[in-house]
Order: sequence, then structure tokens, then C-alpha cells
Amino acid sequence: MKIRIIIPVSTEKWTDAVADTAKRSLRPDTEIEIICLQHGPEAIQSEYNETRAAGHVLPLAQGAEGAGCQAVIIWCFSDPGLAAAREITRLPVLGIGETSQVFALMTADRIGVITTLDHSVNRIKRKIAARGLTTRIPVVRPLNIPVLEYDDDEKVSVRILDIARLMVEKDRVEALILGCGALVGIREKLEEAVALPVIEPGPLTLKQAEIMVDLELCHSKRSFMEPLPVIEH
Amino acid sequence: MKIRIIIPVSTEKWTDAVADTAKRSLRPDTEIEIICLQHGPEAIQSEYNETRAAGHVLPLAQGAEGAGCQAVIIWCFSDPGLAAAREITRLPVLGIGETSQVFALMTADRIGVITTLDHSVNRIKRKIAARGLTTRIPVVRPLNIPVLEYDDDEKVSVRILDIARLMVEKDRVEALILGCGALVGIREKLEEAVALPVIEPGPLTLKQAEIMVDLELCHSKRSFMEPLPVIEH
Amino acid sequence: MKIRIIIPVSTEKWTDAVADTAKRSLRPDTEIEIICLQHGPEAIQSEYNETRAAGHVLPLAQGAEGAGCQAVIIWCFSDPGLAAAREITRLPVLGIGETSQVFALMTADRIGVITTLDHSVNRIKRKIAARGLTTRIPVVRPLNIPVLEYDDDEKVSVRILDIARLMVEKDRVEALILGCGALVGIREKLEEAVALPVIEPGPLTLKQAEIMVDLELCHSKRSFMEPLPVIEH
Amino acid sequence: MKIRIIIPVSTEKWTDAVADTAKRSLRPDTEIEIICLQHGPEAIQSEYNETRAAGHVLPLAQGAEGAGCQAVIIWCFSDPGLAAAREITRLPVLGIGETSQVFALMTADRIGVITTLDHSVNRIKRKIAARGLTTRIPVVRPLNIPVLEYDDDEKVSVRILDIARLMVEKDRVEALILGCGALVGIREKLEEAVALPVIEPGPLTLKQAEIMVDLELCHSKRSFMEPLPVIEH
Amino acid sequence: MKIRIIIPVSTEKWTDAVADTAKRSLRPDTEIEIICLQHGPEAIQSEYNETRAAGHVLPLAQGAEGAGCQAVIIWCFSDPGLAAAREITRLPVLGIGETSQVFALMTADRIGVITTLDHSVNRIKRKIAARGLTTRIPVVRPLNIPVLEYDDDEKVSVRILDIARLMVEKDRVEALILGCGALVGIREKLEEAVALPVIEPGPLTLKQAEIMVDLELCHSKRSFMEPLPVIEH
Amino acid sequence: MKIRIIIPVSTEKWTDAVADTAKRSLRPDTEIEIICLQHGPEAIQSEYNETRAAGHVLPLAQGAEGAGCQAVIIWCFSDPGLAAAREITRLPVLGIGETSQVFALMTADRIGVITTLDHSVNRIKRKIAARGLTTRIPVVRPLNIPVLEYDDDEKVSVRILDIARLMVEKDRVEALILGCGALVGIREKLEEAVALPVIEPGPLTLKQAEIMVDLELCHSKRSFMEPLPVIEH
Repeated sequence: MKIRIIIPVSTEKWTDAVADTAKRSLRPDTEIEIICLQHGPEAIQSEYNETRAAGHVLPLAQGAEGAGCQAVIIWCFSDPGLAAAREITRLPVLGIGETSQVFALMTADRIGVITTLDHSVNRIKRKIAARGLTTRIPVVRPLNIPVLEYDDDEKVSVRILDIARLMVEKDRVEALILGCGALVGIREKLEEAVALPVIEPGPLTLKQAEIMVDLELCHSKRSFMEPLPVIEH
Repeated sequence: MKIRIIIPVSTEKWTDAVADTAKRSLRPDTEIEIICLQHGPEAIQSEYNETRAAGHVLPLAQGAEGAGCQAVIIWCFSDPGLAAAREITRLPVLGIGETSQVFALMTADRIGVITTLDHSVNRIKRKIAARGLTTRIPVVRPLNIPVLEYDDDEKVSVRILDIARLMVEKDRVEALILGCGALVGIREKLEEAVALPVIEPGPLTLKQAEIMVDLELCHSKRSFMEPLPVIEH
Repeated sequence: MKIRIIIPVSTEKWTDAVADTAKRSLRPDTEIEIICLQHGPEAIQSEYNETRAAGHVLPLAQGAEGAGCQAVIIWCFSDPGLAAAREITRLPVLGIGETSQVFALMTADRIGVITTLDHSVNRIKRKIAARGLTTRIPVVRPLNIPVLEYDDDEKVSVRILDIARLMVEKDRVEALILGCGALVGIREKLEEAVALPVIEPGPLTLKQAEIMVDLELCHSKRSFMEPLPVIEH
Repeated sequence: MKIRIIIPVSTEKWTDAVADTAKRSLRPDTEIEIICLQHGPEAIQSEYNETRAAGHVLPLAQGAEGAGCQAVIIWCFSDPGLAAAREITRLPVLGIGETSQVFALMTADRIGVITTLDHSVNRIKRKIAARGLTTRIPVVRPLNIPVLEYDDDEKVSVRILDIARLMVEKDRVEALILGCGALVGIREKLEEAVALPVIEPGPLTLKQAEIMVDLELCHSKRSFMEPLPVIEH
Repeated sequence: MKIRIIIPVSTEKWTDAVADTAKRSLRPDTEIEIICLQHGPEAIQSEYNETRAAGHVLPLAQGAEGAGCQAVIIWCFSDPGLAAAREITRLPVLGIGETSQVFALMTADRIGVITTLDHSVNRIKRKIAARGLTTRIPVVRPLNIPVLEYDDDEKVSVRILDIARLMVEKDRVEALILGCGALVGIREKLEEAVALPVIEPGPLTLKQAEIMVDLELCHSKRSFMEPLPVIEH
Repeated sequence: MKIRIIIPVSTEKWTDAVADTAKRSLRPDTEIEIICLQHGPEAIQSEYNETRAAGHVLPLAQGAEGAGCQAVIIWCFSDPGLAAAREITRLPVLGIGETSQVFALMTADRIGVITTLDHSVNRIKRKIAARGLTTRIPVVRPLNIPVLEYDDDEKVSVRILDIARLMVEKDRVEALILGCGALVGIREKLEEAVALPVIEPGPLTLKQAEIMVDLELCHSKRSFMEPLPVIEH
């Protein structure tokens, strides 16, 4: 099986980390192919960035089948282009946002998302609302550290523990989702600190992609109809 | 006052009709500037088209203030790029979809949308859901005539009356929204036939834009925060 | 165009301020006619007051068409008699509560209302719930200054800024509605202090009434059916 | 114990039937006092009628304690003046609409209301929505027989069975509420025909009033605060 | 009339208190029969306890009609076995949880439940959600005193007043339900302290059972269908 | 890895089919252990059956860890004992109902469940409601063939295609869940006939169990707290 992972930003900065995560999570015989954008923003921290990136995601999703892949993953918590990508390919297309939000429903009654910046809170809440999941995932809180500063592991680590504790004590969440594809390597420490399930969207989505291929499951062509031909300039 | 109208498709096909509508609806001293996309699809009939168009809408919204405009309208019922556009300009940005859906709440308890194609039904429902308005606007039905065939007025006219009657009798809607910026010139006939309010999103949105400028109202910068700088390739 | 404004209280106390607001907000050729109640309470600060006033609003709404008006406004945030008035006239009838709540949906994701007294909080929340808008307008907080003491501008001004800040910081609202027809002259100061859109219902509703007349839009006679004749004693 | 029953219409037409129902339902030592309106409409079949009646209900509710009563019932399915009445008396005030809707939740998952006229459907649905009960009571269907023609028992009887069967087969309701204080004497026949619980609001509310008095339960003064003094003309 | 009260725990510890409550609440001619479980847990403080108890409740509910009873009450706030019991008897079966939650809707807009332990909060919230009542009963807070330590009246009393005040001030609830069949003898003191209605589920449910019998009301056999025969080992 | 599968009925009738499904779905190195109930009903077709079975599921779930298992599956679409089982073991416990409902959210906007009997419709809807998923999974329709007659493949097959087509055309569902652990071997044919995703809960849940073990994910101990010790007779 071969899975195409689209990192929807125009930088190779995350490629190694994602490859590494995939290697640890997937079955030995599952191959991955990681593609970043040629054009578009280097990070997705606003509706603006997301909208600019989404259009560039689509040809990469569309081309996956021709490149011998059986599934596509959009590796960003805001799932840029997800619904559109499902319309234009017969392969399953998974977003790490939707996948982790949906899976989290099995772990707890009341779920919280930790995101990067204040700028992303409403953007994520709109997606949760559109999915009808707000009553189950009512809390989204930001770290307020830009994603491109995640190199400073110590700073991220201290802040994330503070936010998580606040979400447990004040917001009474019962499970946490790390709402950014770049929040890696922190899950174990966090789980221990707050004694709650902590979901890392990337590895989970990799494995769900394998399942969808194994079980030959895909998206509904009634929900995501194949577009009629339209000229594009 | 000057309003920029973005028709988010790469064709001039609708420009005259929109100009005509604007002339009839706006105050004599309100100027308009109509811009179509250079790049992008010629019609928006899928999530795919919408996503491809949305990225190209943004620079046009962003440039409106510099071009001396006081408000921006995105003239397509799916409001491509609406949230993103609000982040990157200080001007009010209105989408004809959101504007007409929100206004319709004042006319009836239970509202229906007539859209073009089956392909657009879920797309519109997702937006209504994300806005928390599904209980008030629960019905979306398609004409199933592609927007580029709207020249055949007779065909559109017959079909739209059939659909509208079905929505009244079977779905018990109490007001109708013409869910496509290209469904013009049909409202009076339809209103008479079904004896319900029929909302034509274009003219309504033009007048709401005037109001927002008059009252110096704009979108919340907490809901639509100004993006942090991100390099784009 | 002529608009009848019904101030649903039995005092002329607000007439000049409303006339003044109307003059500043309306088009030069829009005429207004302000009517107060002959009978009923001097202020609406409870369900009791509202219910007592509502019955007296209706003949004034019904008589508007005969008096040459094209629209009716009920100038009180609790919209006393709104649904009933729509049944008995062919003119559009707008309430400043409903109008501002609906319009606010275009400005922010999460909206708060500042009302006068603790006594009005549940009353307003019930109306928002009946409209299906609670998820978008979840916060209503009182000033706790009776409306008839609004002369003391300084006191109102200090209190309102405190409440607004609390709503931003604690309730995380992203736009504010001044939930009382008598909270005038404070909007600019407040908008500046909290850096959020602040909606003053009166001027907004005046302009929406003009729009409804211009576009020949009215309420659904399916939602607000014409009453059968019933003898009244 | 003494209960004041307010029939909120200006006719004595229903007094005997209500007295009869009360006699059959109440404990022997519970006294009732039936009062109709002096002023107001003879029937409540619209928001207009309801609003006109509601103001006249209030002094009757307020006076109940002074007349030695321990509870008040508003005997109309639209509960005119209910919230307001609760503000101005320390006695429990029950509406036959609210009481039966709430009680019905114990009998079935999905409940339907049979009302008199098309004109009342939205009016009742708005109340159910304001109470947050729409998901449990989603169906309201009219008989389309004006309440003052209920004398023709045969006609009502045939029509009500037809409507009830439609609600069971098509709307899949699992219990029925007779949504009009005047639909009496039909329950047994209907229950037998559809094999579902059928709730007759009047007798139920009489017994709930007894319970509230027995248990010294009353409405929350936080939900229904005592009004501040306001001059009324 | 004879009512069977099932105390769904395997201890007689509560029998006298329940008998006492029943004696004070019921009509003189209503007989009760109190039954505890032979097998099952001594207290219900978890989903585990509740699930273990529920199966043992059912034969007791089923046998009630044969024992000459006209109604059944399951005397535990989590209503173990309630839906199942309704399937297998023609008698009304009331749970003190459902009954008090539903009744509370008539007393206030926003209701809170005081439960025993942290362990029960989610369990109760799941039931409120399944009933579609979360918007009206959004708050559940624990005393954190195990039910078997309720003998220490002083400790319970102090703690319950603290929790109740917190729920009023911080959660802004407007009525309280004592969410445990064992929280008896505290209602008056609590009502006085917080000036809100406080609902004691036991006495209320006893009286509702009488009403259901008096009015010959029962549960819908569409909602709670009679099971097909299935062999049980 | 070893997974315990609990078939919560007191018959071995399904063991071979489940073993067969597991063999086809799981990784070669995943071992399974299938356990049926000693006591309890032979089928779960009512709340009564489910409640009777649930208590017997619990010791089997609790014993799984001691038997060297890493995960537990309750193989019945109504998930008997699921919440309780999660409280009493540190292993992940999956129900095929919850798992398939949650997963289906990724495949379509509007989902329908095909269940066995009319008797199960409300039972399943209550669970979907308690999970807050009704807006996404609004449709549940029965085959009306008792589960123990599933041997007649032809009859099941014809009926299921009819129901599925009805759900597509009339209910407009966009994906289907086979809502019974015994509806096996029909998925491919059905998917072809209706051109929608059809989810077979068993295989999906087996693979989700593997994922939970692989990723060391488990349920929240805040949502499913460990019970305090309670004596059980």
C-alpha cells in the first residue's frame, strides 16, 4: 500500500519529522510519499493562509491515484481542501483534523483541542461546528506560539503543560487533541502530566488511512459528488 | 461611496447583469467596481471549483481599500474566501450567501434555498451548519440546471416554479432564497406563484453593504484576526 | 417613504432622542412618524411590562398602512407584539431586538448582548432561544441600571465599559449588541474601548426598514398568517 | 386547596365544560374558581388574539392569592401571559400547554401536537423551540376546524382520527397531545384508534397544580424576577 | 391504588426513609410496596454499579402488575432499567431521575443537579443528553460524599449548602434538583438558603405516579415496544 | 496482540462467523479470544434483552487484562455495558455500534443505520442522541427480520436492498451502517446496489482495536472513572 501525505505548506521544514512519524506508525509494508506545496504559504495560521494553500493542495490529491497511491492524507489540522479533494479522486482522503476529532469521540465525553495561535481558535471552531460536533468538542485553546518557533522545545513544552492543566481544571475537558501537525514528541509527557488521553493526529490518521484501504472504504459520492467539467483559466 | 463587487469566476459573462442589478438597487451616489478573476474556474459548482476560486478572491478583496472602496461584496452564493477576506482588510466584506441567509431569518420561521445543481446541496448545507442556522434553514433543493445554461430562461423558469411549489407543499418552507447569484429576473414571478417572500441575494447584499458603510460597522477582529506575516511562494 | 416608529411605552420621554437618531440615520426623503402608547407601562423591564404593552402596540401597527406608512418599527429590544403585528398588516414590521440580533451574525461568531437589568436577561434569552440563535448569541449581561435613570450619562458610561470588558475577557464575546433602545450615544466610546463591533439597534433597524421597502420584501404569510375574524370585547 | 382557572377568552362558552373536567379530575376537597376575561378576544387562534388576551390575564393571575387561591392555571394551549404571570404572584402558575408538553416527555421519545388551525402551528412551534424541546416534540399538525365550531362533535371526531393516523404513519410520532383546551371528550376514542398515549392537557394540569401546592413547589424567582415598579397608564 | 417502589440496591438501609417519605407524600388511600434487590450492588455510584443493578430491577418491575400494583417507581436518580422496564409491563414505570428532570422544566429556565460523587457526573449528563434536555439542565455538580456516609447529616448539610451557592453564583442555575434518592430532609433548609426552587425527586415521583394512574396514562408502546420472545439462560 | 471479543448473547451461534470475520480483518499476529455469555438472552432485540445482557458482559470485560488481552470488543450494535466496562478495566473497550457510528462521520454528511427490528429503532436512536450525533446520523430503519432468522440469506438480501434504496431515495442518506453484528456477507452487494459507502461494524472495530493498542490510546478516566468499592450480593 502507498499513501500520499500532502504537507500543505511551501516548505520542506516538516518533511523529515513527518517521515519519521510515519515510519514509526505504519506497517512495514506501507510506503509513503510526502509532498509539500510548490506555491502557497509556509505556514497555515489564518483563514487567509488556509484559503491560499487549499487550491494548491487539490492537484496533489488528484494526482495521487496516478502515482500509484491508495490513500491521501492532508497533514494539517485545518484540513485545507479536504471536501474538494474528496470530490476529485476515488481514493480516500483524510485530514488529520477531522480524523482526530472524530476518533476522539470514542475516548471521552468532553474534548478539548490545543492549537497554536489565538488566530486559529475560531477557524477550528467553525470546522467543528460545521461537523455538528461542538457539544462534544466545545473547547479550543491556543498555545500562542507561532508554529515556526516550535524548535524551542523547552518553551513549547512548558506552555503546553500549563494550557493543558487549565483545560482540565477550568474547562473540565476529559481528553485532549494536539491540534497542530507540528506538535510532535510531546504526547507522552503531556499524557502523564494530566492523566488524560492525548491524541496526536498524525500517527492516528496514518493508521486510519491504512484501515480505509484495507477495508476498501471510501467517501460517499453523494456527499462529495464528482464535479461537472468547468473550464479553468 | 464605492463598493467593489468580486464575481469569483474567470469569465465576464455575468458582469453586465450584475452591473444592471447594482444600478437598480443602489443609491445614485454609490459607485461600483466589478472585478472578475483572472485565474480560476469559470463557474462554481463544486467544492473543487470553490476552493480553486477562493485563493484568487483574496488579493482582490485586499486591494479594495487601496482602490478607494469602502466595502467588498463576494458575488457568489457559496461565499468563496469570505472568512479569509475579512482577516486581510479593514473594510466590510459581504457574501451574498451569508447575507441573504441571515436576512431571511427576519422573514419566516422555516426557510428554503433553491440552488443550481445537486452538486451544491451539501456544500451549502455545510455552510448553513457552520453558521448554526440549520434549524431555521433546513431545506436546500437543486434546480439541476448548470449555471452556464441559464440563458434558456424558459427552461429555468418552468423548473424553478416546480421546485418552489414542491418546497412549499412537501418541505413546508415559508420563505425562499434564490441560492445562486445568477438566478436573476425571476423573483417577481416566483413570489407571485408561491405567495411567499423570495429573496434575491444580490440586490439585498448591495444594500446591506451600503448600510455597513453608513453605520461604520465592520467585522470583529476577534473573530477574523489579522494574520501574522507568513512567507508565501 | 414613510416609516411608523412605535415606542411601546406610555411616555414621550424617548421621542426626541428617537427622532434625532432617525434624522441622523435615514435618507433625507424618508419620513418618520413616532407614536407612543396611550395606555400601558412607562418602561419595559419585565415580562409583565412587556405583556401589558404588547396588546397596545397592535392597533398602532395595524393602523400604519392607513396612515400612509410603508413600514413599522417596534422600538424596544424585546420586540413586544412583533409576531402578532406581522399577522395583521401587509407592511414589514421590524423589531430592534430581532433586527440587531440577526444582523450581528454577520459581524462575529460569538455575540453578547448588554441589557439594562437582571430582570431582562432571561426574557431576552428566551427570545434568542425561540429564534434558534443561542449558539451564536450565548451571552446576555445586565447593566443593572433602570432605564429611567439613564439620564445620568456618566454612571451609565462607566458601568457599560466595565460590563463590556468583562464580556470580552471572561465570556469571550466577539461583538456586542446594545440591548436597549435607550442606550444611545455610547457606541463610539465603547467600540474604541473594547475594539469590537458594537451594534446600536435603533439606527440599524431604521436602515433595514428602508431596505425592506426598497426591495419590496415582507414577512411570510405562511409564518404569520392573517388571523381569522374573532370577536373582541 | 383552591385553584383559580383563568380561561383567557371573553366568553363563558367553555366554563361549564372546564368545570366539569375539573370536577372529574380534582380531589374532592380541591375547590376551583373559573374566571374568563372581561376584555379581549373570544378565541385565541393567532399571535394577534394571544397578544391581545395576554395583558388581560395578568390582573386575574395577580389577584388569585388575595382571593384565597393557592395556584393558578391558564387554560389555553398557548399559555398566554404565562411568564409574566409568574413574575407577579408567589403562587404557582401553570399553563396547559407547557404542562402537557413537559409531561409528555415521560411517555414517548417523539411527540406530536394536534392543534386547531393552520394559523396556530408556527405559534406553538415557537413556544416549543423557546423551551428547547423541538427535538422531542417536532410535529405540530392542525385540524383546521375553528375552535368555535367544536360543537359539531362528529366532524371534529372524524377529522381528528384522520390527522392522528397521519401523524403516526407519516410523522412517526409516538404520543399525542391534544393541543387545545377545547378538545375534550375525544381522548379515549383516539387512544384506542391509534394505540398511543394521548394527553389531554386540562385534567393533567389540574393535577399538576395540586401537586405543586402539596409539595410547596413554585417557580424560580431568578427565572421570573419580581418586576420593579413601573407606572402604568 | 398500590404502587411498587423498587429501591435498586441490595440493602434495606433506605427502606424506612423511603416508606416515611411515601407516607408523607401520598394520598391516604395509596398503598405502597417497597422492594429492594436480592442481588446486585449496595449502592449505585458508577456505570458499573448501575449496569449490574439494572438487570435485577426488571423482574421486579415485571411482577408488579401480578402483585396488584398500578404503577412502578425506580427509586434511584440514574433510573436503572427504566426503558427496559417500560417494555415489559403495561403499568407506568417512573424513574425519580427522569421525573424530576422533566418536572423541573416548569420551574426555571436553567437547572442544576447536585449529585453525590464526581463518578456520577458524566453518567447523569449522558442521560440528560439522551433526553435532549442539556440546554435546559446544563449543570451537574457532585457533593463528593459517598452515599453510604449520608448518616453524617451535619457534613452533608454543610457541603450541600456550599455546592448550591456555587451553582447559583458561578453556574447561574435558577432551580436545583437533589440528584440522589438519599438526599432527604435537606430540601427546606436549602431552599431557604439559596432562595430557589429545590426539587426532591422522591416525593414528586410518588405524586406523579398517582397522577398517571388517575388519568390512565402510560408510556407509548411505539417508544417502548413489547419485546419478542427470546430464550434466556 | 490479543483482543477479547465478547459476543453478548448466551449462544455460540455467531462464534464461527465472528472468528471468520476476525481472521479476514486482523493482522496475522493479532490473536483473538471469543467469549459468549453463560447467562443472559440469546439475542438482543429490545432494551429488556440489552439490559439483561449488559450485567453479564462486565466480568468478561474486567477479566480480559488478566487473560493477557490488550483490548476488548463488545460485538453487538447496541454496545451493552460499554460505558460500565470502560470504568473497570485499563484496556480499551470498543463497541461495534459506537465505533462504526463515529467512523461513519468521515465518510458522509448524512448517515443512516439499518437495524434488525422495529423494536430496536428507538433504542439505537437514544444512543445516537446521547452521543450528540443525531444531526449527522438522523435515520434508523429496521429490516423487520428477527436476527435468529438470518440464516435465510435470500430473504435478508432482498429486504436489505429494498430498505437501503428507500433510505437513499426518500431519506437521502449518503452512507449506510449495517446496524447489527449479524449482518455479514452482504456489504459488497449492497454497496454496489446503492453506490454508497456501507460500513460493516465488525471488521472496522477489529481494526480500530488494533490501532488503539498500537498507539497506546485508551478511554479517559475522567469520563469513565474507576468505581469506588461497593459490596455486591
